[in-house]
Amino acid sequence: MKKPWDGRFTENTEKTVEAFTSSVSFDRRLWKYDIQGSAAHVRMLKKQKIIPARDAELILRGLGEIAREIGEGKFKFREDLEDVHMNIEYALINRIGPAGGKLHTARSRNDQVALDIRLFLREEISGMIKLTRDLQRVFLALADRYKGVVMPGYTHLQRAQPVMLSHHLLAYFEMLERDRGRFGDCAARVNVLPLGSCALAGTSLPIDRKYVARLLGFAAVSENSIDAVSDRDFIIEFLSAASVLMLHLSRLSEELVLWSTEEFGFISLPDAYSTGSSIMPQKKNPDVPELVRGKAGRVCGNLMAMLVVLKGLPLAYNRDLQEDKEPLFDTVDTVKDSLSVLTKMMPKIKFNKTVMLKAAEGGFSTATDLAEYLAKKGLPFREAHNVTGRIVKYCIHKKKLLEDLTMDELKKYSGIFEKDVFDHLSITASVNRKTSLGGTAGKRVLQRIKDIKSTI
Amino acid sequence: MKKPWDGRFTENTEKTVEAFTSSVSFDRRLWKYDIQGSAAHVRMLKKQKIIPARDAELILRGLGEIAREIGEGKFKFREDLEDVHMNIEYALINRIGPAGGKLHTARSRNDQVALDIRLFLREEISGMIKLTRDLQRVFLALADRYKGVVMPGYTHLQRAQPVMLSHHLLAYFEMLERDRGRFGDCAARVNVLPLGSCALAGTSLPIDRKYVARLLGFAAVSENSIDAVSDRDFIIEFLSAASVLMLHLSRLSEELVLWSTEEFGFISLPDAYSTGSSIMPQKKNPDVPELVRGKAGRVCGNLMAMLVVLKGLPLAYNRDLQEDKEPLFDTVDTVKDSLSVLTKMMPKIKFNKTVMLKAAEGGFSTATDLAEYLAKKGLPFREAHNVTGRIVKYCIHKKKLLEDLTMDELKKYSGIFEKDVFDHLSITASVNRKTSLGGTAGKRVLQRIKDIKSTI
Amino acid sequence: MKKPWDGRFTENTEKTVEAFTSSVSFDRRLWKYDIQGSAAHVRMLKKQKIIPARDAELILRGLGEIAREIGEGKFKFREDLEDVHMNIEYALINRIGPAGGKLHTARSRNDQVALDIRLFLREEISGMIKLTRDLQRVFLALADRYKGVVMPGYTHLQRAQPVMLSHHLLAYFEMLERDRGRFGDCAARVNVLPLGSCALAGTSLPIDRKYVARLLGFAAVSENSIDAVSDRDFIIEFLSAASVLMLHLSRLSEELVLWSTEEFGFISLPDAYSTGSSIMPQKKNPDVPELVRGKAGRVCGNLMAMLVVLKGLPLAYNRDLQEDKEPLFDTVDTVKDSLSVLTKMMPKIKFNKTVMLKAAEGGFSTATDLAEYLAKKGLPFREAHNVTGRIVKYCIHKKKLLEDLTMDELKKYSGIFEKDVFDHLSITASVNRKTSLGGTAGKRVLQRIKDIKSTI
Amino acid sequence: MKKPWDGRFTENTEKTVEAFTSSVSFDRRLWKYDIQGSAAHVRMLKKQKIIPARDAELILRGLGEIAREIGEGKFKFREDLEDVHMNIEYALINRIGPAGGKLHTARSRNDQVALDIRLFLREEISGMIKLTRDLQRVFLALADRYKGVVMPGYTHLQRAQPVMLSHHLLAYFEMLERDRGRFGDCAARVNVLPLGSCALAGTSLPIDRKYVARLLGFAAVSENSIDAVSDRDFIIEFLSAASVLMLHLSRLSEELVLWSTEEFGFISLPDAYSTGSSIMPQKKNPDVPELVRGKAGRVCGNLMAMLVVLKGLPLAYNRDLQEDKEPLFDTVDTVKDSLSVLTKMMPKIKFNKTVMLKAAEGGFSTATDLAEYLAKKGLPFREAHNVTGRIVKYCIHKKKLLEDLTMDELKKYSGIFEKDVFDHLSITASVNRKTSLGGTAGKRVLQRIKDIKSTI
Repeated sequence: MKKPWDGRFTENTEKTVEAFTSSVSFDRRLWKYDIQGSAAHVRMLKKQKIIPARDAELILRGLGEIAREIGEGKFKFREDLEDVHMNIEYALINRIGPAGGKLHTARSRNDQVALDIRLFLREEISGMIKLTRDLQRVFLALADRYKGVVMPGYTHLQRAQPVMLSHHLLAYFEMLERDRGRFGDCAARVNVLPLGSCALAGTSLPIDRKYVARLLGFAAVSENSIDAVSDRDFIIEFLSAASVLMLHLSRLSEELVLWSTEEFGFISLPDAYSTGSSIMPQKKNPDVPELVRGKAGRVCGNLMAMLVVLKGLPLAYNRDLQEDKEPLFDTVDTVKDSLSVLTKMMPKIKFNKTVMLKAAEGGFSTATDLAEYLAKKGLPFREAHNVTGRIVKYCIHKKKLLEDLTMDELKKYSGIFEKDVFDHLSITASVNRKTSLGGTAGKRVLQRIKDIKSTI
Repeated sequence: MKKPWDGRFTENTEKTVEAFTSSVSFDRRLWKYDIQGSAAHVRMLKKQKIIPARDAELILRGLGEIAREIGEGKFKFREDLEDVHMNIEYALINRIGPAGGKLHTARSRNDQVALDIRLFLREEISGMIKLTRDLQRVFLALADRYKGVVMPGYTHLQRAQPVMLSHHLLAYFEMLERDRGRFGDCAARVNVLPLGSCALAGTSLPIDRKYVARLLGFAAVSENSIDAVSDRDFIIEFLSAASVLMLHLSRLSEELVLWSTEEFGFISLPDAYSTGSSIMPQKKNPDVPELVRGKAGRVCGNLMAMLVVLKGLPLAYNRDLQEDKEPLFDTVDTVKDSLSVLTKMMPKIKFNKTVMLKAAEGGFSTATDLAEYLAKKGLPFREAHNVTGRIVKYCIHKKKLLEDLTMDELKKYSGIFEKDVFDHLSITASVNRKTSLGGTAGKRVLQRIKDIKSTI
Repeated sequence: MKKPWDGRFTENTEKTVEAFTSSVSFDRRLWKYDIQGSAAHVRMLKKQKIIPARDAELILRGLGEIAREIGEGKFKFREDLEDVHMNIEYALINRIGPAGGKLHTARSRNDQVALDIRLFLREEISGMIKLTRDLQRVFLALADRYKGVVMPGYTHLQRAQPVMLSHHLLAYFEMLERDRGRFGDCAARVNVLPLGSCALAGTSLPIDRKYVARLLGFAAVSENSIDAVSDRDFIIEFLSAASVLMLHLSRLSEELVLWSTEEFGFISLPDAYSTGSSIMPQKKNPDVPELVRGKAGRVCGNLMAMLVVLKGLPLAYNRDLQEDKEPLFDTVDTVKDSLSVLTKMMPKIKFNKTVMLKAAEGGFSTATDLAEYLAKKGLPFREAHNVTGRIVKYCIHKKKLLEDLTMDELKKYSGIFEKDVFDHLSITASVNRKTSLGGTAGKRVLQRIKDIKSTI
Repeated sequence: MKKPWDGRFTENTEKTVEAFTSSVSFDRRLWKYDIQGSAAHVRMLKKQKIIPARDAELILRGLGEIAREIGEGKFKFREDLEDVHMNIEYALINRIGPAGGKLHTARSRNDQVALDIRLFLREEISGMIKLTRDLQRVFLALADRYKGVVMPGYTHLQRAQPVMLSHHLLAYFEMLERDRGRFGDCAARVNVLPLGSCALAGTSLPIDRKYVARLLGFAAVSENSIDAVSDRDFIIEFLSAASVLMLHLSRLSEELVLWSTEEFGFISLPDAYSTGSSIMPQKKNPDVPELVRGKAGRVCGNLMAMLVVLKGLPLAYNRDLQEDKEPLFDTVDTVKDSLSVLTKMMPKIKFNKTVMLKAAEGGFSTATDLAEYLAKKGLPFREAHNVTGRIVKYCIHKKKLLEDLTMDELKKYSGIFEKDVFDHLSITASVNRKTSLGGTAGKRVLQRIKDIKSTI
């Protein structure tokens, strides 16, 4: 079919090339933003008298009708019209006649697509910040619900020290808080209007970019037209923020998978959030966290794709940039789905408190308390550590727990021990002594819950 | 809806979870291989008398009908049936009754999906090897067509030495030859039957895996059931081979983009393979090579995605592995499309011989010949290089070409120069003197073309 | 050798394991921060009376001496002491006796190393922000120096519209401005004190973390001890910001390589910033931009490494995290070196104004002006584009430039043309008409230069 | 200092540029291969009478002396001499005079460095294939040592079916077998001589490349000089094969970490292969597998770095390629160290057989046997699966094991059950019934061990 730009061409585009270069199969997703941007653009063209008011009105009405049609699923996108922009412009001209041909005045697809993606991403980031907050609320509610529950804290996946389950859950709250921060910082860099940069040089027509920015709610206007059409920083920044978020979810998922093993037994996933096996009738699998963990790979892959695309591209717009949309869209969907499904699932998980407590009692997990006991009594910590280490070795050998040791046994390792040492060997006491700021003591955790509640 | 594995479950699967975990939207693409594998499996079950012959016949007929229905686009895949495997099994039971429930005897989805992907990838790699060969043939034909055409060879994108255009084009032939080799090596590791590994342990039923392998044309049978259901090496290996191929195409594309600039002007792309600008009426853009170059990023991203997915997964099957299909499918499509469009486009490109020759004459590109001249006369190469370098500096200063120098001028730099030196300063003579094996001399290139023709 | 933690161990560490797990060969780079953090920690222990004042003084003096020794290159780091932390603690105890064993009171290497990296990165980011500013200043100075110079603007590497060289150079100013923004946002998330989180649970000792934060200039204190020792977000965020910066430099480098080809000839690199060939005496290669472009790969690789490392790690500290340092250090060095060398080189580049102008005159680069001319006169832009496209086709056919067309020739395509059209076909007039905000008109660029100057 | 190529230059190289572009700090590692290649080159120059025999002898002697000096650590590499090649050539000329200047006849650093890397990588791959074989032998020996030990097989990290520990260990044997295959395929593509391609065009001197290939043991000679100096495929292919190997080791490491938790308790790591905590006296951490798991990220990062470096590079040599060495060297070291340390550690691990067996007895892991029992009796497998699933649900409710069910209880679910069903519920019988090829039955595993032994 005839292309809108084919004035200087002597051949029709090859079918294979049409199919290979067309982006409408995926960029149609931007239709709402494309029309929103076009409407603002037309209002400006009218205000600036660049096109007659009557034409502008016609265009706005036409765009409104097209929007309705697309929204209702009645619009037919055509591959040979290349992209969402040309599909809509073509439909507009078909509908309202030559006046439609004035829409693209003082505009190029280069700045138009940059605008569409920014409008899209601005909205999606805002949605993701909300979804992240929702998941944070779940962690907060769980921390509240399970206050007082003790579990083993791990380093190197070896039991290290007893901690509050609430404290562990709130660790994810903090991670997500940083994720929201990164999304917010990214959104600020997204929220800049590129429209009016045209192909790369700006225009000789008397446009008013600040007016368009106001209409579309942009906080700023891009300062350099060449940069504005070449820039995809904000996509990489977003993909990177999304990758970190997905890494957080992958760490959470790893723990959910671990904790729901029969070996750990810390949690039971609800049947409604698990699936079975086609061959093994007894199986109930933690598919949701496994998939979320896997999807972290997908998002990191999308990030890598964009880095490779942009590497070594000269200014300004190059067609390679068309490859920005699919990784972006896929990441948006993946992040939103992953957040949503975890937000629904987490509150349904059953935490097996007694199993956790029992596990916390193993692994000599109060050995550090013993060492701190000695340090408080004046023994240099390095020596206190060594004394305690040797006591642990003795316990392993004798198959004893620390709390089962007699004073005589303890005295063999250090004369410093007194009766009050036994207070330091109880799990709950151990947890509750960790009152340092950010520590796991019950009252610290409660205070943090209170503080968070007061801010969100 | 009721799941085939829900005997031990007490709740229905949550809708969100169904949507989040379902793979049928993308794995339906494997339907042909799924049915092909099931048919071979059933034939074996029958031969081994694991299921009655009559049931086997029923199943085979049912599978055939389902295949026809899918092929004709009449089959309705359901998301709540999770994946392509369950959709087909469910349709089979619906169609032929309880006998259909015998299909999944001695099989799990774990080994079934591994089989399907291997069948799929085996066929696709074979197709890609052919497409790569097609593009190689294009390079061969172009090398043949443009024999004798001289162009500047570049290092650091600076003119280095004159080379034959044919020689340059055949460099891509060699790259693609290695790509074919890598695809072939990968195919050999793909061509191993995993079916019969069942969930992870094998089965107590008297199956005959070698028979299934024979039916499906596999060269070998996997030796360890746990490994067979956990292994996705072959996907990474394929994605890596595809990434290298796409890097080759990205290098070619970079050259096509460069060469079609007005500054280089070495080639003209056909109008039918270019597109225009929505704003700039004079523009004709090399969209195809730009997109191919960009798509290299996409494939590298897919590779990275799979690496992240597999990192740190314990044995055997984990649901994370479901994330293997989309990067694989996308890569297959991207590679095939990129190869095809270049294969169509390359022969249509117009090579501007005189521009190339003129460019080859600039840049003092016979300076190395001059140095080799001196070396042949006995001057240590390192000194010959220095003498020539100083001559070049003189020429730059005097704005002269090497061939314009007089014998007097030359003699100032070295007494070794004799009249025969001027033979070494002609571009064509320079090219044709590079007769070393693999060198760019005309007769070498012709010989290589002949050799290649005799082998393909 | 005896390890400080070997109380409970029954065997000595295997030599291979010592070598494999030791990090001192690279983390020694953190010594300054390690000692700085230890000193603040000890001051707090003293203030809180957790250790006696005299011991604290001894430790502080000891640390000071060790710092001096390391600074002077006299300190001997030992691999069998694992890491920088243990090397320093061991030296301290050797030097001041058992009191040195009190340094590690209420502290773990888990929070200590998190502190060290944050101190290191905070300082390095601050340095990189300065280096980025330096390079921005270079672009600003060049924009100022070359004001009024016209060059062809490119899209798809095809000449698109004439632009000001200053405008093109300032595009990089804008990119770097965003880079500084990203570094700044990252620095804010780096600037949080993790110390006091101890192994993962906090401590029972009455530490004062806010005091330590004040001593070390941290803006905040981490709120969750488990999170604080597991978190490496800030490293990924930094690597991502660094990757975007390196992509910008790779785009600049690509242009420098292109522009210094004989085909473009827009710039000449200084001899002092180029290198030659071992075989081709005439070669002068743009090695610096080539290497910078390549080093973008290195930094992206480092980012990918960290993403893979963190994927799927359960809380809290795992030894995998030790792999964070080398990619971080390498990235810091690469970014700093790349910024520095470009900052030195850019001002030495010779821009060949006449070559640029001549190139701008080719490629029908004022065709868009022609179309805008028609649009201003009321022709719908889409039709104006088509009319102009056909005129360009005519020019290609007739081998004419747009400015060579007669009024008669123009009139054949549209009756709208009047004599004032010829004003629209001059290159300089074209540039200077692009007065839209962010556009390339001379006065716009001057204004931007002025604005920037007033803010930096 | 004066550069060997500075004949045409008018300025000395800037110090910063010298430091930024120099590669000798890392490529000196190639010295042995550089000298080996040079020696073969000189022998050929002599045979072909391109340089006088006497000069050739002088050069060979000089190279030998330099090799000795470097080997003994007495050679001083200079940064201002750029790279290993120039350092050695410079030392040669210093030592033997102008004859040394003849070494670089008919050679460029472009083909020389390609040769050096290929020689290096050929040797290293061969070493890695041996190291991989060593680790395979360890798995074989362990499989032999622990034959008959039953453990739970996992899918989704949920207990699935009982398997032989030997079978699980041999899964890694199979993975490593594929790794060896990939290394071998890569080595074949590495084993091609690039020398003689010179800068990019070949040479006019009568060199004999096949003779050089013979001297250096290359199986083939590159067919295209332009390709030969541009090609780094083999590095990416190697990095990719190394990444897959490291992913395998990351999966093994994940299991070692899991299995050494107190929750799993399947293995105990030797004290000599673990390290402790600076604060928690009881800790014994699985640092080695954690680090190996982390190092998988490092190698994937190196792969990604090279992909980015090569993307979009025009032919032939570009300085970007200098960035190939550090990721290559780092990968070689990382892979070798990881293989070595695991080879030493694996045999020292204590496998806790009774813990494994006990775990295998949980999780209703013979449910599939029950379903297969019903299927063998004629019930369609899909129904047998459902019946068994409901029995499992009953057991969960009644807190019973499958083997504790009475015939009456079973009969309630299906009339098919007969007394022989109880044979199907024993763990050991279950394992040993999995006699399918590749299955986990004891005799299958023994057979596989025997087969492997007979081939290695």
